[in-house]
Amino acid sequence: MSQTANCDENLLAAAYLNRVAEPAAIALWLLVREHGYRQAAAMVRAAEVPPEVAACTEARRDTTDPHADLAAAERNGIRLLTPASPDWPHFALGAMDRLARRRCAEWLTGRRARAAAGELIPPLALWVRGNGQLASIGIRSISMVGSRSATAYGDLVASDFAYALARREVTVISGGAYGIDAAAHRGALAADGACVLVSAGGLDRPYPSGHAGLYDRTAEAGLLVSERPPGSAPQRQRFLSRNRLIAAFGTATLVVEAGLRSGALNTARHARDLGRPVLAVPGSITSAMSVGCHRLLQRDEQPAQLVTTVTEVLSYCGGEVALPDAAPRTLYDALDLAARTVLDAFPAAGTADPGQLSRLSGLPLEGVRDALAALQQLGLVAETAGGFRLDRAGLRGP
Amino acid sequence: MSQTANCDENLLAAAYLNRVAEPAAIALWLLVREHGYRQAAAMVRAAEVPPEVAACTEARRDTTDPHADLAAAERNGIRLLTPASPDWPHFALGAMDRLARRRCAEWLTGRRARAAAGELIPPLALWVRGNGQLASIGIRSISMVGSRSATAYGDLVASDFAYALARREVTVISGGAYGIDAAAHRGALAADGACVLVSAGGLDRPYPSGHAGLYDRTAEAGLLVSERPPGSAPQRQRFLSRNRLIAAFGTATLVVEAGLRSGALNTARHARDLGRPVLAVPGSITSAMSVGCHRLLQRDEQPAQLVTTVTEVLSYCGGEVALPDAAPRTLYDALDLAARTVLDAFPAAGTADPGQLSRLSGLPLEGVRDALAALQQLGLVAETAGGFRLDRAGLRGP
Repeated sequence: MSQTANCDENLLAAAYLNRVAEPAAIALWLLVREHGYRQAAAMVRAAEVPPEVAACTEARRDTTDPHADLAAAERNGIRLLTPASPDWPHFALGAMDRLARRRCAEWLTGRRARAAAGELIPPLALWVRGNGQLASIGIRSISMVGSRSATAYGDLVASDFAYALARREVTVISGGAYGIDAAAHRGALAADGACVLVSAGGLDRPYPSGHAGLYDRTAEAGLLVSERPPGSAPQRQRFLSRNRLIAAFGTATLVVEAGLRSGALNTARHARDLGRPVLAVPGSITSAMSVGCHRLLQRDEQPAQLVTTVTEVLSYCGGEVALPDAAPRTLYDALDLAARTVLDAFPAAGTADPGQLSRLSGLPLEGVRDALAALQQLGLVAETAGGFRLDRAGLRGP
Repeated sequence: MSQTANCDENLLAAAYLNRVAEPAAIALWLLVREHGYRQAAAMVRAAEVPPEVAACTEARRDTTDPHADLAAAERNGIRLLTPASPDWPHFALGAMDRLARRRCAEWLTGRRARAAAGELIPPLALWVRGNGQLASIGIRSISMVGSRSATAYGDLVASDFAYALARREVTVISGGAYGIDAAAHRGALAADGACVLVSAGGLDRPYPSGHAGLYDRTAEAGLLVSERPPGSAPQRQRFLSRNRLIAAFGTATLVVEAGLRSGALNTARHARDLGRPVLAVPGSITSAMSVGCHRLLQRDEQPAQLVTTVTEVLSYCGGEVALPDAAPRTLYDALDLAARTVLDAFPAAGTADPGQLSRLSGLPLEGVRDALAALQQLGLVAETAGGFRLDRAGLRGP
């Protein structure tokens, strides 16, 4: 069943509200919180809204066509998520939601400037494309960010770390740009790991256009995410609002290389505001691309954590797991001690009965019987008329 | 008057005690504290000392010849300093003295192990060679330490920083070894700045021998310092005890590059124990020579300060000063506003009287008179029969 056929009024309302204002519109978010998607959309359309909502919606009030957006999305394999969707990233966005409520309360009571309150407003809806899922994002994920004009050092570190982290079941998130972003995506893809690309524009408009292939491969192995509807251009302000999603999706945010004015520092600030660890890779003091990282590490308040190894990064985004390589290579490695002892006690050829195996192994008869039952279940021994027979073929690794 | 001709009993006692035990002998230091140099030396010679003093002195008790040491020192341009010498580094060693007293008290009352108490015992005497002085060391000085097998990056940073710091009147201290030490010394020497080389062995035995020229140049421009008497070999333990002097002499200690087992980390620990700032230069995470620096920066307790510029280093070792280049280039730059205004008001040729100058400059007559007096003192105007006359030649820079 296609999404447009299924699209209920809520989805249409979400698509409408998602386009009618630019992301992180504080007044619109408050309206939706109070009245829900359908009511809020109807109020905006009827221009029956407070002046602050009118100000951020009237330019597109009458031209926004959610049917067209949903149809364009369907043509491009893109679907729309709202907080009612099973795949909505509630876990990852929880911190932003709490922060937005607190900051809005401070703004409404005059204790905070509006601009400072509006920066970390949760998205009303998200467009996604690909096979990955978002529901558990943030539990074991890393946002890797950095300079577009990365050095060979930054590229190497980003792709190496992304590869090693993806191999350890950490979802790698980045923004799809040249430089550090691309290196991070490529490392995760090379590891066949989970990866998420958060785009500033519509998902049918890869940016930069040279990354169309990267977008396609990420959609296949992971997920593309954007707050903007299909067809949207990646405008400057959308990069800044996009960065808050990257910060929110990562269990931690890792800045690999950043110049003094890099957008990665904006992402790092969002992560800090959301209470997420900010990690930074040090580099040569002679490299302009490490100046931003060093500034983060030198902060008096809430400095970034200096990381030099994958193990250190892991300690901030979910911890170490056994690599496939470190897992049992053969079934034998996975057996308990009693089963191994019984297996080793089998004669080189022929059959044996439990009594013999007990004498040969030194295990009590009851222990031998339990071990034989387990070994039988695994297909390593078979019971025949003459007793138990070993099937060593089953022990070889895959 | 030569030192041997002048050597009183105190100097002989200090030379004796300085050689009879290896540096940082806690029991001997306590004996000297209680009885003074002459009495303590007489007690050691007569073997009338507590068992712990006997243990660290009996091996050399009868063979130590302070006359020979002082004679060898004189032949090599080396002199002996004791706390009674005007050039003794009381300022720099104050923290070590206080720490040693506290730790000894803890050791004697069973609250601290002897080894842990004895590490930072002040020197009983110091051998020095060269034109520099030690009395004010530690007020505006930097101890630069690091790996002997430094990379090109470390060498560059060490020599650049040492040069820039020495130009800003910061005394550069290091250990005379290959790698970071040598780069630091060379940078300071290139700047014609103050520099101190603290050697582990006797000052007549440059170590490494390839650094004989570096020793000579440092003696000329600055100072060589060693706790060990002439002829002493640079044994391993002496490097470790030498490191405590390097840590004590620096207002801050800067680790430029260090492997995981670098002696520079030992110096950094001493500096931390002495309450001195420890600074570290970050580097590539792929460089084994930066691992030690990154470890210092990652410490949970009292992490090192990450520094990337000379200005940051300066903020920990005495602050910025105006460079010769930044100082007034002409006398005019150094004048106050009133004097400049009067100067500018002078007619292009001829003389002017205070009344004219007051009208031309807009300053009150009294202010003009004060400014003229100041300008006269500086030789910029002269009083003649016809009034005041300008001497523009005096305004040109040197």
